[in-house]
Amino acid sequence: MRPLLDRVELPGGPSDVRGLLRVPPGRVRLADYPTDSHPGSHGKTAALTDRHALEPVLAGLQERCYAQGHRTPDRRRLVLVLQGMDCSGKDGAIKHVVGAFNPEGVKITSFKRPTAEELRHHFLWRVERALPGPGDIGVLNRSHYEDVTVVRVHDLVPPEQWQRRYDEINEWERRESDDGVIWLKVFLHISAEEQRRRLLQRLDDPSKHWKFEAADLDERGYWDDYQRAYETVLERCSPPQSPWYVLPADRKWYRNWALARLLAETLAAMDPRYPEPDLDLSALRARLSA
Amino acid sequence: MRPLLDRVELPGGPSDVRGLLRVPPGRVRLADYPTDSHPGSHGKTAALTDRHALEPVLAGLQERCYAQGHRTPDRRRLVLVLQGMDCSGKDGAIKHVVGAFNPEGVKITSFKRPTAEELRHHFLWRVERALPGPGDIGVLNRSHYEDVTVVRVHDLVPPEQWQRRYDEINEWERRESDDGVIWLKVFLHISAEEQRRRLLQRLDDPSKHWKFEAADLDERGYWDDYQRAYETVLERCSPPQSPWYVLPADRKWYRNWALARLLAETLAAMDPRYPEPDLDLSALRARLSA
Repeated sequence: MRPLLDRVELPGGPSDVRGLLRVPPGRVRLADYPTDSHPGSHGKTAALTDRHALEPVLAGLQERCYAQGHRTPDRRRLVLVLQGMDCSGKDGAIKHVVGAFNPEGVKITSFKRPTAEELRHHFLWRVERALPGPGDIGVLNRSHYEDVTVVRVHDLVPPEQWQRRYDEINEWERRESDDGVIWLKVFLHISAEEQRRRLLQRLDDPSKHWKFEAADLDERGYWDDYQRAYETVLERCSPPQSPWYVLPADRKWYRNWALARLLAETLAAMDPRYPEPDLDLSALRARLSA
Repeated sequence: MRPLLDRVELPGGPSDVRGLLRVPPGRVRLADYPTDSHPGSHGKTAALTDRHALEPVLAGLQERCYAQGHRTPDRRRLVLVLQGMDCSGKDGAIKHVVGAFNPEGVKITSFKRPTAEELRHHFLWRVERALPGPGDIGVLNRSHYEDVTVVRVHDLVPPEQWQRRYDEINEWERRESDDGVIWLKVFLHISAEEQRRRLLQRLDDPSKHWKFEAADLDERGYWDDYQRAYETVLERCSPPQSPWYVLPADRKWYRNWALARLLAETLAAMDPRYPEPDLDLSALRARLSA
């Protein structure tokens, strides 16, 4: 009767990329996770076609969430958390995948080195301010997880301070979940060799020199420390309501496709519906024609 | 040699849609401005083709602004102000035109009825907070101009209060211009008949019922008052550094094309360039290969 008000089906049928990429409980060794595999996809050409088909579906799901969150008491909102080593493609993923959404309903925050004001607050303060309102989509480009990775690798706070943060993060994410936040936490997993290739490409292209920071080379020296810090994150902060997904990100076409699928599956599972306000259609039409 | 670092040329060659739509000095009578004309365009098909060609150009210009604003002392940033009657297409313009930009560098704010906190501040307070940082693009969906239109039409503050706001707005916009804001103020101009058609369409489509507000019908009764309020805005708040553009918006294809051209012309005139940091390329390459 009114197909637009029914459940949204994904092109190519239902998929379970979430199931394929979700971190299982227990010990995590990132060395066991390939960076150049492509679980769930049927190769590059099929992935590009599928992503193209997903774009209007993503926008449609977003519009329903927006309508529901802005016109009904439904407080749910999707929050995408992107973490990964330098050059892992966080910015590229936002440009190519998040770009499918209507920008009016998306709140993107890129977390840099904390400002003096941010440092005067609890580390979760600035992240809480970046959460979207009901029906909007939030994107965190880096996040509170910097406070247990870069902070740990460089001893920016005493160990007893960062060690208690895993529990604080779990409690806070749980509280936000109870308030309607649907977490989608994605670790873009690249190899050290792929990072080297991408840094060299930046040097070869004058239009990308502005992205180059000498500090990135220093950070490469801490590669193994970062991998260990992320392993702890993936182990300790993957409760059922906000699990981590490890996305093999050496191949950009796969990264974009898998992220689009993760978003689509998550939004479709929220099953957003257009509100159906009680309008007296004939009276309204009559008034408009007067 | 390095074409990417040179000036960006617009597809189809330079255009001057800004010149065609800019409000001239003097008395403004909106009745003299057609709502269904298409100045500067060569018809619907050509407009769609041109807009498609403009999308990567807009994204490229934005990236240069972003690089310049985030990596150099250049403080310039474009701020698009969208005003118009209900149904004039502000949301549609953002979805279809602003969607061409990388969402990470765009800050969009939709102004609703002021909150209790906003009302405790000067009317410009909430707008100042919505301005983007250097190199980013700001979009104001409604703006401080609500404070001299809806406020005036409905007598929400005493006349002596809203009457002095025109000068306050001009002074404030001037101050922000001096700090690097490039204003692009666009009035989406539709006819009362076109608004009626769009409201009726919303009633005919269940997936659009959530957008329908009975108050929109009440507001239609104040059409002439709003037109007069906007005429004063266009007359009194169009100084050389932040003029208004009146965009005939009855045809959506023209609205989207003209707005894309206005944005492209404005960004191209800023002539943003990629920063050229002083990198020791061979030393960096050697370090990366080690």
